[in-house]
Amino acid sequence: MAHRPQLCRSILITGCSRGIGLGLVRGLLATSPPPDLVLATCRDPEKAQELQQLQKQYSNIRVLQLDVVSEKSIKAVLKEVEDLVGEKGLNCLINNAGINISASLDEVTTQTMLTLYETNTVAQLMVTKAFLPLLRKAAQGGTGMGCHRAAIVNISSDSASMQLVEVKKLCLQVYPYWIAKAALNMVTRCLAADLKSDGILCISLHPGWIQTDMGGKMAPLKIQDTIPGILSVLASLCDTHNGSFLDWQGETLPW
Amino acid sequence: MAHRPQLCRSILITGCSRGIGLGLVRGLLATSPPPDLVLATCRDPEKAQELQQLQKQYSNIRVLQLDVVSEKSIKAVLKEVEDLVGEKGLNCLINNAGINISASLDEVTTQTMLTLYETNTVAQLMVTKAFLPLLRKAAQGGTGMGCHRAAIVNISSDSASMQLVEVKKLCLQVYPYWIAKAALNMVTRCLAADLKSDGILCISLHPGWIQTDMGGKMAPLKIQDTIPGILSVLASLCDTHNGSFLDWQGETLPW
Repeated sequence: MAHRPQLCRSILITGCSRGIGLGLVRGLLATSPPPDLVLATCRDPEKAQELQQLQKQYSNIRVLQLDVVSEKSIKAVLKEVEDLVGEKGLNCLINNAGINISASLDEVTTQTMLTLYETNTVAQLMVTKAFLPLLRKAAQGGTGMGCHRAAIVNISSDSASMQLVEVKKLCLQVYPYWIAKAALNMVTRCLAADLKSDGILCISLHPGWIQTDMGGKMAPLKIQDTIPGILSVLASLCDTHNGSFLDWQGETLPW
Repeated sequence: MAHRPQLCRSILITGCSRGIGLGLVRGLLATSPPPDLVLATCRDPEKAQELQQLQKQYSNIRVLQLDVVSEKSIKAVLKEVEDLVGEKGLNCLINNAGINISASLDEVTTQTMLTLYETNTVAQLMVTKAFLPLLRKAAQGGTGMGCHRAAIVNISSDSASMQLVEVKKLCLQVYPYWIAKAALNMVTRCLAADLKSDGILCISLHPGWIQTDMGGKMAPLKIQDTIPGILSVLASLCDTHNGSFLDWQGETLPW
């Protein structure tokens, strides 16, 4: 583990109270050398006991309130983060927060479609827009692309892959989720094309189907199986990955 | 033109007051032999003078009111269509209605994202759900797949292609549109997998970049250039096309 370069100076992750977000925070804090600043955001920090515990243990974590669908909340956390990262800016933004509502074709409604899109697609775009000035600051004067400079990682899902729908069709009970995650992949593609000239990388990442509150008990993987893989993928990101759709083992997934 | 089989008995198209929708209606009415019933829907039939004129000229067209984002309007038109198609059901549904709002990364807001998604993605799913019983009726006892039996055609755009983003990046001024159209392609994929066993085909179709109110004056094609191609594609659809993304010349586009 020794002599590995630092993944990044500063990293902000949304949706850290549990599941993959919490796993990533734990994994990052245990990395050697760890980031200088791990900004772990969640909707309700007071209820996030694990995060509060980590904040007592580690000096490089800050637990911040962020409801990704609230413009007001985004503005407030941005101000806090500006003060924390200063002139060095923010190296890495992981858009992890998301929800699921099961709905088959029979069950799906306009409201569930819009709710999932707002939370799992639009919020990622709006959070990214808010932090762009800080990502641009971090990218300035840097070379290459990756988390060491400036990167946006959208936590997607292999169920967002149009090509894989036929393979995975047993899961057609989640129309709003699949469709919103496919749209999130398009957000990744647009951002990757738009921000390339700023030196900011953007990818979609499938974290594996994991036993979490969202993934359910049928999932084949546990969080501890995939976090090391995800961290390796993050560490390996370079300009050739810009705009790609990777899984937790670094394999490219089809759109 | 003689001895070609009828494309379908009945076809319903949304957004027919102008542009591609109106072009398709004109093209279908001029086909030999034409469909028995062309159901041309639009938000405001009274203002749709070209459609009203066609209704005076042709006995096989019905102009019907449909606002695709209104549940009430969908219910009302469904009742009318049930009476018109009777026990034979509806062969072909073309989800053509859609809007555009230009917005670059700087300009895009939560509201424009949600408005475009509701109109260009969710409405297509909800209209399809409403007409499913009629499509299933038409599919019953038929063989093969295609417009002769039961088909759903989602009018998409090559700007929905994730792979083509880099080629077309001059157009990154339309975040809400691109992202919603990519999501619409996922709707196509889910419906194609879900409805295959009912004998109902579903595709996404890129109609070409056409000089319409939406396409603008920069567009390289005129409506009359592409409508014959689109009608040929519709006529040629069979089971191998289910779940595919075709352009107006029948070429497959990448997701």
